[in-house]
Amino acid sequence: MYYSLDRQSVLEYVRKSPLMAQIFKNGNDLTAIDLAEGNINLIFRVRSATTPIGPSVLIKQALPHSRRYPEIRLPVERARIESAILLLEAKYCPKQVPEVYLYDPEMYLIAMEDLNQHKVMRYGLVSQQRYPEFPRQIGVFLASTLFHTSDFFLSGSEKKAMVPEFINPHLCKITEDLVFTQPYIDHPNNRCNPLLRTEAEDIARDEELRSEVLMLKADFMTNAQALIHGDLHTGSIMVNESETKVIDPEFAFFGPMAYDIGAVLGNLALSYASQECHATDTNLRGRYREWLTEAIERVWNIFEVEFRTLWAAEGNAQWPSEQLRDKFFKKLLQDTAGMGACEMMRRILGLAHVPDLDGIEDERARAVAERYALNIARHWLRERHKFTTVSDLTAIIRTLEPTGSA
Amino acid sequence: MYYSLDRQSVLEYVRKSPLMAQIFKNGNDLTAIDLAEGNINLIFRVRSATTPIGPSVLIKQALPHSRRYPEIRLPVERARIESAILLLEAKYCPKQVPEVYLYDPEMYLIAMEDLNQHKVMRYGLVSQQRYPEFPRQIGVFLASTLFHTSDFFLSGSEKKAMVPEFINPHLCKITEDLVFTQPYIDHPNNRCNPLLRTEAEDIARDEELRSEVLMLKADFMTNAQALIHGDLHTGSIMVNESETKVIDPEFAFFGPMAYDIGAVLGNLALSYASQECHATDTNLRGRYREWLTEAIERVWNIFEVEFRTLWAAEGNAQWPSEQLRDKFFKKLLQDTAGMGACEMMRRILGLAHVPDLDGIEDERARAVAERYALNIARHWLRERHKFTTVSDLTAIIRTLEPTGSA
Repeated sequence: MYYSLDRQSVLEYVRKSPLMAQIFKNGNDLTAIDLAEGNINLIFRVRSATTPIGPSVLIKQALPHSRRYPEIRLPVERARIESAILLLEAKYCPKQVPEVYLYDPEMYLIAMEDLNQHKVMRYGLVSQQRYPEFPRQIGVFLASTLFHTSDFFLSGSEKKAMVPEFINPHLCKITEDLVFTQPYIDHPNNRCNPLLRTEAEDIARDEELRSEVLMLKADFMTNAQALIHGDLHTGSIMVNESETKVIDPEFAFFGPMAYDIGAVLGNLALSYASQECHATDTNLRGRYREWLTEAIERVWNIFEVEFRTLWAAEGNAQWPSEQLRDKFFKKLLQDTAGMGACEMMRRILGLAHVPDLDGIEDERARAVAERYALNIARHWLRERHKFTTVSDLTAIIRTLEPTGSA
Repeated sequence: MYYSLDRQSVLEYVRKSPLMAQIFKNGNDLTAIDLAEGNINLIFRVRSATTPIGPSVLIKQALPHSRRYPEIRLPVERARIESAILLLEAKYCPKQVPEVYLYDPEMYLIAMEDLNQHKVMRYGLVSQQRYPEFPRQIGVFLASTLFHTSDFFLSGSEKKAMVPEFINPHLCKITEDLVFTQPYIDHPNNRCNPLLRTEAEDIARDEELRSEVLMLKADFMTNAQALIHGDLHTGSIMVNESETKVIDPEFAFFGPMAYDIGAVLGNLALSYASQECHATDTNLRGRYREWLTEAIERVWNIFEVEFRTLWAAEGNAQWPSEQLRDKFFKKLLQDTAGMGACEMMRRILGLAHVPDLDGIEDERARAVAERYALNIARHWLRERHKFTTVSDLTAIIRTLEPTGSA
């Protein structure tokens, strides 16, 4: 029977679980902290109160509504989808996801590895941290998870059998609205820096831009290309010097690969624009931005090399053409630029912003960074049909200058 | 309990059915004919033996294998899919589909309207019949069925709830193999006029062509755009002077709209090429070909006008852009040309041919018509990315001349 946990009952739950007993030898020794992170789920850290280096477990439970906004109803079913995709990702890319210890289908609860040696990537980027292993590890993660859930690896019947398990209408609807619709029309959900009113109005009037965004929305809604994470921004990535872990895949469904890759690249570009304010030393800023643009290039290039390697080694016999692969990656790169652009624009014009930009307290300084990001995004969107390599994306970043000044 | 019917047991089945009793007042008066049409199902016509103008019903039952090729196993489940899509099509386009009287989920059996006032369109085309209502009626059918099962009409959650009901892996696999894979490689299933060996080898060596076909295959396998018929060639269309009926939708699934439209246009173009041999009077041939090219143009144009009308009148609020519609139709036209080209090529190079061409007894004459059709198809495929109106497709037909002579 489902009931929502609190700090007390989560301990009782853990003590009663035979699986948890394998992790915690001493059930009487446990303590729970309510992490109260994220907007939609309950998350507790359970660990030994007396042994500081003892095991630590995260308990994540879905509520039938959003934790922070109780008026938003959300199906608890998302916990099943999250645990199912975490197990699949672990099969192909075990180092890049938290380990799932148990999934409780009645409680819509996942007990998983506590990534307490890792930091949310977004905040590291704000303070100009470099993660030398990140481009390779996220590139490998993208290649491996997307390839192994695509028609290039799975047989038609295997893939078609998996699709219904990951049909995720409620969470997809959030993306359809917040990413692809509301930011480009006059909608009460939109939150936008008042100093960007001109730009927001320009974009709302830009029929060409809106039609391109809606073409990408149609792709998001119809292109069941692979099992995608569905929300792969830098807040869903935990990092440290040597490791990269991808968390929170509750938006997962069979959708376009470009949506995941574009989210990664778009959020790196958002960080690039935000450095206008975070990195106050211009030399330091320039060097850090160079690291970010190289990261964008390396993520794509490693993704492509890795995907091609997997395709050659494990691909099924259904795609007998080398040239198809070239065409596939060219189209995927163009779609990625488009999806990345949508991610960037919606983080400035729509409801859900990013701390990289929202954390800039001075409204005028923030407007400069936001305008810069919007400019990059519009170029990515408009020029993407001509792109052939990832350096077409980074050339735009390198060429554009911030306009206006703080 | 499932058992396969014969001429005797189909009568017993009908006599016992309360629903059938509403159609046939006198159960003792019935006679059954085994139509033995098609390759994969049992089909019986049941009607009164004494009253020649009494009601007549078709009983179509799925076997767990192909009727003609018993070694090919096929899931009986296809009968459920067929009856479900027939009911949906009847909701939006009742005049263009046979009425379903009953579906028996244990017997995988559909009792439906007997279209004995109609003729299979393909054979009418072979003898230069004109069907004045066909372009309008098939254009309306395509627009109405495709629009009403797309994200432009359905809400995301409505459509996503329908997708699993029409996941159809076995029949999709037949298309993936026979249309998009085998014809372009050296495969034992392929049957090809020996006089076309040079062309078949050229095509098998044409990496560019094969990669374009495989891009369309990827689209067929991933693009869940609308509930499509999945096998809409002119053998699935029954016609007479005033009516058009679409039958046999057992290949239905959520796939690319272009696959249905391309099948219609591609089969009209196959008929065009085949007239080289069927219409021996050159004046008559020219006039009939003009009717066929105009039919291709009218099918597309009526489809587009009708789809735009439905979109404006019944579309949901998720697509606020006029320009999106223009982009949508442009891309759909290009995809349609590609899918139509694949349909044409596979009917000459692959396993399943069309009577339009296979009915030409003289091998050399047939080679001329087949070469002509292949030539049209290759131009459609190669040049489609530049197409903006359907006259780009028909201009290719009108410009090309048959090569070689009978």
